[in-house]
Amino acid sequence: MNFGRFSSYEGFLNELEAFHGKKAPGGVLGLQMVNLAWDLLPKGILMDVICETRKCLADAIQLLTPCTVGNHWLKIVDTGRFAVVFYDKQTGEGVRISLNMEEMKRHAAVNEWFLKLVPKKEQNLQAILDGINEGGASLFNHCPVTVDPEVLKARPKVPPVICPGCKEAYPPFHGALCRGCQGVTEAYFHRRPQ
Amino acid sequence: MNFGRFSSYEGFLNELEAFHGKKAPGGVLGLQMVNLAWDLLPKGILMDVICETRKCLADAIQLLTPCTVGNHWLKIVDTGRFAVVFYDKQTGEGVRISLNMEEMKRHAAVNEWFLKLVPKKEQNLQAILDGINEGGASLFNHCPVTVDPEVLKARPKVPPVICPGCKEAYPPFHGALCRGCQGVTEAYFHRRPQ
Repeated sequence: MNFGRFSSYEGFLNELEAFHGKKAPGGVLGLQMVNLAWDLLPKGILMDVICETRKCLADAIQLLTPCTVGNHWLKIVDTGRFAVVFYDKQTGEGVRISLNMEEMKRHAAVNEWFLKLVPKKEQNLQAILDGINEGGASLFNHCPVTVDPEVLKARPKVPPVICPGCKEAYPPFHGALCRGCQGVTEAYFHRRPQ
Repeated sequence: MNFGRFSSYEGFLNELEAFHGKKAPGGVLGLQMVNLAWDLLPKGILMDVICETRKCLADAIQLLTPCTVGNHWLKIVDTGRFAVVFYDKQTGEGVRISLNMEEMKRHAAVNEWFLKLVPKKEQNLQAILDGINEGGASLFNHCPVTVDPEVLKARPKVPPVICPGCKEAYPPFHGALCRGCQGVTEAYFHRRPQ
């Protein structure tokens, strides 16, 4: 078992709590998935990641791999499934790792937590984490995938331009106005009169 | 100056490098923006964040606040602008902090880096970081905002269901099939024959 840049399981768990807010079982599933990916993929590749959920799993990926939302090596394509694609950023060849729903049933505490079968206050966190670590790689299915060449393309490194609407800088390929002035923030927030 | 859960500026910079991959100037701008937000917002609130870019700024927010992509307290609404909304998750009242493009011109190294006016290899990272820290709060504009009540709503905590297509678990409110089986991953990756 490897813990990325952390020296131990406890070191990872503590950072998961500091970063994510709690020692989330989904983060420990993420630890197992990342380890399985390292086993399955060729050594020495530069790995990028597509995570299929915005939940705790995404935070574990950010802590355990070089891939974060802010450096663009982690992309989130939210299907709501507990699954991750790990791939060679040069060739696009990789592996999709997802939960094996049948195998998970062998670990009652994990199954009850994941499927929300018992109320949170009746769950035993330690039993869930232990179940995940006992199950290890057996908890997952995996299949080879190829990532689309368009996804592999580096983002254009073009100088920003000033939006004639808000006078802020934005990438010119967004259009004649920035996306803010095109209305994409409308559903999220509004300026309040001072 | 406050460094969140890090004990010093150097501590934050080192973690920015470990997490994000480099001591990115945008992360240090993020440090200044988070400090300005702490100054402007009432003490003792629970703060959530909307970041308007997927770049280094988003990683600084994840390191310096309790808000991450995986715990849903950080949302990214990508307008491509270097701006962040920090807000009280209970009331939705907050502040939007954005770069002051005029003020940035007073700090040549920062301005040249941000607007990509000189090639990367001719940039002096230390001069850029020093310029950001000299400029501090003066580098930003800020205005009060109200976040939409829909954004404040907690996500429904409903048990997942099994997709009849892929047999994986997914949130039932996504529809009769999971979003993967609805096609949202089509543009990203494909299963490769084994």
